[in-house]
Amino acid sequence: MPDRSAAVSLSVIDRLAEALGPRVTVDPVVLDAARRDKSGHVATGRPLAVVHAESIDDVQHVMRIASDTGTPVVTQGAMSGLAGGGTAGEGEIALSLARMTRILEVSVPDQLAVVEPGILNAALNEQLAEHDLWWAPDPASRAISSVGGNIATGAGGLLCAKYGVTRDAVLGLDVVLADGRLIRMGHRSVKGVTGLDVTSLMIGSEGTLGVIVGATLKLRRVTPGDNCTVTALFPTVRAAAVGSAAVTAAGIQPAIMELMDAACLAAAHRLLALGDPVAGAAQLTIQTDGAASAAEADAIAAVLRALGAEVELTRDRARGEELLRIRRAMHPAMEMIGRTLIEDVSVPRSQMAAMFDEIATIEREHGVAIPTVAHAGDGNLHPNFIIEGDGDEVPDRVWAAADDLFRAAVRLGGTLTGEHGVGVLKSRWLADELGDDQWRLQRDIKAAFDPHNLLNPGKVFAPVV
Amino acid sequence: MPDRSAAVSLSVIDRLAEALGPRVTVDPVVLDAARRDKSGHVATGRPLAVVHAESIDDVQHVMRIASDTGTPVVTQGAMSGLAGGGTAGEGEIALSLARMTRILEVSVPDQLAVVEPGILNAALNEQLAEHDLWWAPDPASRAISSVGGNIATGAGGLLCAKYGVTRDAVLGLDVVLADGRLIRMGHRSVKGVTGLDVTSLMIGSEGTLGVIVGATLKLRRVTPGDNCTVTALFPTVRAAAVGSAAVTAAGIQPAIMELMDAACLAAAHRLLALGDPVAGAAQLTIQTDGAASAAEADAIAAVLRALGAEVELTRDRARGEELLRIRRAMHPAMEMIGRTLIEDVSVPRSQMAAMFDEIATIEREHGVAIPTVAHAGDGNLHPNFIIEGDGDEVPDRVWAAADDLFRAAVRLGGTLTGEHGVGVLKSRWLADELGDDQWRLQRDIKAAFDPHNLLNPGKVFAPVV
Repeated sequence: MPDRSAAVSLSVIDRLAEALGPRVTVDPVVLDAARRDKSGHVATGRPLAVVHAESIDDVQHVMRIASDTGTPVVTQGAMSGLAGGGTAGEGEIALSLARMTRILEVSVPDQLAVVEPGILNAALNEQLAEHDLWWAPDPASRAISSVGGNIATGAGGLLCAKYGVTRDAVLGLDVVLADGRLIRMGHRSVKGVTGLDVTSLMIGSEGTLGVIVGATLKLRRVTPGDNCTVTALFPTVRAAAVGSAAVTAAGIQPAIMELMDAACLAAAHRLLALGDPVAGAAQLTIQTDGAASAAEADAIAAVLRALGAEVELTRDRARGEELLRIRRAMHPAMEMIGRTLIEDVSVPRSQMAAMFDEIATIEREHGVAIPTVAHAGDGNLHPNFIIEGDGDEVPDRVWAAADDLFRAAVRLGGTLTGEHGVGVLKSRWLADELGDDQWRLQRDIKAAFDPHNLLNPGKVFAPVV
Repeated sequence: MPDRSAAVSLSVIDRLAEALGPRVTVDPVVLDAARRDKSGHVATGRPLAVVHAESIDDVQHVMRIASDTGTPVVTQGAMSGLAGGGTAGEGEIALSLARMTRILEVSVPDQLAVVEPGILNAALNEQLAEHDLWWAPDPASRAISSVGGNIATGAGGLLCAKYGVTRDAVLGLDVVLADGRLIRMGHRSVKGVTGLDVTSLMIGSEGTLGVIVGATLKLRRVTPGDNCTVTALFPTVRAAAVGSAAVTAAGIQPAIMELMDAACLAAAHRLLALGDPVAGAAQLTIQTDGAASAAEADAIAAVLRALGAEVELTRDRARGEELLRIRRAMHPAMEMIGRTLIEDVSVPRSQMAAMFDEIATIEREHGVAIPTVAHAGDGNLHPNFIIEGDGDEVPDRVWAAADDLFRAAVRLGGTLTGEHGVGVLKSRWLADELGDDQWRLQRDIKAAFDPHNLLNPGKVFAPVV
């Protein structure tokens, strides 16, 4: 019955246009942009419309229309996702919050900010710096990723081992439910245990439970003192992993501890025109901060030199940022190589070296290159599967290699995603990790929020194909 | 049909005894003990039986029998709760986990411990100290309260402003569902966002969603360096509250910052036989730790002296513990005064002084004494309503005063419970704070876990009387 379905779709667009005017678009270029994020995944078919919400009211209008007409909705932000969690396709409304970028309040005494979800992570921290405050979640993508997306995926970033994950940095959320009702979860106080912690449940829920339209963020004072930065070059990636474990074992907690394998390091050097690094060498980039920063950096340098690494230590902030820039260039450096599937497994720190061994085995067995960068301080690895050939699809043999990767991570006591989320790319492994009982329980919780499955259907809890 | 119901109850006890042998007791003294916690609340009627589970298997047996027979179950730990969340009454099975006290694993490289829920908070940290590790959630009751209870209530304690709340310190939970199935939530890695964060949802769920039978705890290295301790005596409680805000405003983050009003200070001095403090004086007790501890303590002392406080500063750990002992004596000191209803409102730090003004007004208007102690660093106040007369019940005029207290806290942007939980004592205010929509949503989530309402019925989500 294509005619009837077309008529229903038309009526949805009409109703959206009536309620939201020029904030609704059906421009094919805009519709196509809403089908893809930074994961490489492209949704099947075009969404019905993209709505650029500018207020909570707009979002409520969209959800009421969606609810009345049974139309699925995909919430979108800066489209920097790496798991396909925010891609919109056939028959769906793409609800973009990218224009909701205001900071509504900054309280210095209460160390909190109330923000709209569309503000970019870097833009927020620039404005907070004026108050000597910052929000700790610090994804490598901070210049292009939004706070709402950070919360929706539980993104994290480089500073998590010392400063916690995103769920540690959110006090409250304003959420529009599937039927358009607005609820305010959480609190403004440091502590609060009134009822179930639905605020935490929203963090990392990837648009499946509700639309996050506002966030009360827990801020920190800017850490006083100068940062120190240490780089350490090792002959192999395994030696670098052992080095990072030795730092932790020495009882030192750096702010940042990043590991780049030889292929990543070479690619980043090429992108930044820095000249070739030593062939085969892997690098740790470590930053300490706070009152003990200099002493910690000295101790780290000593630990790593004792392991035979070639170490540079700088107390100069600018030089430190320069060294760290190499790590932050990873994603564009990989894009330069060609198409990649970026993975995100996380293992207990003690299993980092073992996980690198597993990656080497998978490279060999599947004949696929997997340059890998890791947040070594917290055991979160980003293996980049290089995809040869054109097209949007990930070839089966890359999926087979990824399958081995996920199973190895879980076997080592880890998880299939540390901070990017499940989206569409990893939903086929979700039940494997959670077990069937927990998978069903989580789907039942989703149903308590969204009984008609209108919010981001086909993501996260998609039935195994 | 009393006979039939007695027969059903008998059969439940028989089945429990058959499966669990001597770990099931119907001794009236034990049954009566299961009716009360440290809140003063006593459940109506006696539970059917108390089961002292010694293993996950035992818990699964109990839940299967409960599920088969439709018998409600109240999970219990050390019975140190302050909101009546773990009290068991008529027709219920009291499922005690107090004997499940093992530490199953301590991993130094991964900074985690896997423990059974019944272990006491202080006992855990004593054993972790051998590995130079500690678990940050530090309730004042740590000597008598269990880790499982800490997690079930989201308890927190004295160190939350600097070291986070309980939900920041739990990586994973093993949970037996209402029907006896065991699921393992969360992960062993620092990061992990696979599916919904049901681990966080369990924290503070007060036995309404499942039975927590194991926990993977995120540990910290023992903070190096010596603690410094500052006490500051102010002429009024308001001046002390302003003093605590001045410390935060100066950008200093103490590990502990406690406030005792004149009545609390006097009671604690009396209990410890320390001689009377200055009449009317309120005290801040502040502890700094870490590399900058001495410099921070000096800065704090300067800030507070400038406000006219009488300040003592010690860098001696033993003297510091002596000063802090006065704060830790609060609960027994209140018990000495007589019956009290201990409240637990939490407000944004900036509203501390205003909240003390509200408490003074409530004392005057209701003619009730409300000695108050506060975790001043995070805005969490414990007003103690002194109850005159005997009996288990809280008189209506005390409830009326408590009602004004809760409304004032919420009006100031706060919450009705910072760390003790809702239990039975606060369920009547839950919908007021959450709003009806969120209250219903939370109850629907409860139903997704526990469709037949067998787990701690009548607690938290009890219908408003």
